[in-house]
Amino acid sequence: MKQEIIKRVTYTSLDEVMAKLKRESAVTDQLLSLAAGVFKDIGERGDKAVREYTSKYDKVEISGFRVTEAMMDDAERQIPEELKRAIAVASANIEKFHAAQKIAATVTETMPGVRCWQRQVPVGRVGLYIPGGRAPLFSTVLMLAVPAVIAGCREIMLATPPGSNGIPHPAILYAARVAGVESLYRIGGMQAIAAMALGTETIPAVNKIFGPGNSYVTAAKQYASALGVAVDLPAGPSEVMVVADGSANPRFVAADLLSQAEHGPDSQSVLVTTSSSFADAVYAETERQLATLPERETALSSLAGSAIVVVPSEKEILEVVNSYAPEHLILQVPDAA
Amino acid sequence: MKQEIIKRVTYTSLDEVMAKLKRESAVTDQLLSLAAGVFKDIGERGDKAVREYTSKYDKVEISGFRVTEAMMDDAERQIPEELKRAIAVASANIEKFHAAQKIAATVTETMPGVRCWQRQVPVGRVGLYIPGGRAPLFSTVLMLAVPAVIAGCREIMLATPPGSNGIPHPAILYAARVAGVESLYRIGGMQAIAAMALGTETIPAVNKIFGPGNSYVTAAKQYASALGVAVDLPAGPSEVMVVADGSANPRFVAADLLSQAEHGPDSQSVLVTTSSSFADAVYAETERQLATLPERETALSSLAGSAIVVVPSEKEILEVVNSYAPEHLILQVPDAA
Repeated sequence: MKQEIIKRVTYTSLDEVMAKLKRESAVTDQLLSLAAGVFKDIGERGDKAVREYTSKYDKVEISGFRVTEAMMDDAERQIPEELKRAIAVASANIEKFHAAQKIAATVTETMPGVRCWQRQVPVGRVGLYIPGGRAPLFSTVLMLAVPAVIAGCREIMLATPPGSNGIPHPAILYAARVAGVESLYRIGGMQAIAAMALGTETIPAVNKIFGPGNSYVTAAKQYASALGVAVDLPAGPSEVMVVADGSANPRFVAADLLSQAEHGPDSQSVLVTTSSSFADAVYAETERQLATLPERETALSSLAGSAIVVVPSEKEILEVVNSYAPEHLILQVPDAA
Repeated sequence: MKQEIIKRVTYTSLDEVMAKLKRESAVTDQLLSLAAGVFKDIGERGDKAVREYTSKYDKVEISGFRVTEAMMDDAERQIPEELKRAIAVASANIEKFHAAQKIAATVTETMPGVRCWQRQVPVGRVGLYIPGGRAPLFSTVLMLAVPAVIAGCREIMLATPPGSNGIPHPAILYAARVAGVESLYRIGGMQAIAAMALGTETIPAVNKIFGPGNSYVTAAKQYASALGVAVDLPAGPSEVMVVADGSANPRFVAADLLSQAEHGPDSQSVLVTTSSSFADAVYAETERQLATLPERETALSSLAGSAIVVVPSEKEILEVVNSYAPEHLILQVPDAA
């Protein structure tokens, strides 16, 4: 019998479906104690320790961690005009969306003379972490830095691992410049989180750390949080849930599932549908598109942890979506609202 | 020489002041591994384990954890009319304030046809934790439950430890009824957090846990958070920072410091002032008022970890306030804004 590429689940109870969609918890006690060691080391030996970890994990020797203006100029020269235009459009859109979040304080007089309000105050110095790896996440640079600029943070610093030439990916540097990030550091992994949390001779300590990362980075952020440095949230692997009924196009749905699956071997792609025949069609399409996918191996590994869930009715769709609470939700149904 | 009741710090640098105001980190590895044991036990043995922990730590035998309507009625009868009126006023004020936080979604069209918005969605089932101990925190009941009702949470449950008679403090039960909490459970400590995080035969698992607590409860909340159950934030001991200049009344400032100090032996009360003579006056007043304070021992222990900080100018006041980021800040100056 042929090995199935993605498991198929028929709804019996919510608990059983949820058990089959269980995410791997990335942060283990082992990773946390590794983080404890890195933090202790960087707390005691500062830049010297950061340099050693960079040499060990990123396989490059870095003298100054700060990304220079010359490196930034050089990065800008490497970016094709088309990508520059795309980054400009994305940056403008993100700015438009987040600018709408600036709300004026509403003063409520709960009793005569007692005036109460909430005030939005920017975090003083924020540290944005942008992972290296598979694909340069320059969109994440924009999504983290643009709101920080709008909020009015006093200082925005960004840490991202150096490439094999000692310099981060040019698209990350360019996006940071477009977004208005003033200080960039070419450090990555646990050592970057520890350096931003504790500060070193050349890397300033920040008030809050934002950004995604692998399980090492996530463990380091959890450790920083336990030390009292604010972090955004523990990021897990990326995931998508697609809700579709018989009216959707199986080709599009399969493409949605695969686009997430190629993110990383631990990404999760889930389809929830009431139609068993539609589930069959998506399965067949996924198999077909997978054959020509450049990131085939990654997607295969990711699909092995993914699922197509067939539920009896719309009621169970809502139950599953709410319980799973996906990072990305795509609704391919006539009445999405 | 007489033992000083509260230490006096003269500003030399921000780092030095902050080192002297360092809060004790309540959650230790030992507490976290204790929490791990309690969670494992309750996960495996459910209600039976909760009953055993309650017997061990609260020194009462509880058969049903759910607080009955009869207990609620009985609590209501025990509350004096004056307290009932105060709870009604507080509840109305809290409702007025939080109702103003309900904001309509702003739809932003970032590009033609691309409409983006944020939507406020209530958490399905919330678990509110109210500690027992020194004083019944019925105001905390209102401050947690009233916003949950306004948000439209599907189910609001509240856990609070039983008193020596097996029943929680009547003021807590009464405030919960006023706020609209439907289900109350008489469980406390780590076992309450574990039961709400995992669910048992009679206690439903919640989506998010809110509320203060001692270092055991805080450790249990951190452990729950690591398991993937949302929590509000790790609560430390309560604290106040008072900023006052020579124009303030030392009697009021001393009273502000002491009102926080009597909260618990690990509370922190801090005065920041530019006037050394005013600092002397507050010290003397604190000593005088302390003599007649009913909770004198608690306050003394709390003041031992507190400080009066004299800084050179307003600039350093802002630095200290921003770095310390107090839970409560009282400004006794002519121009507070």
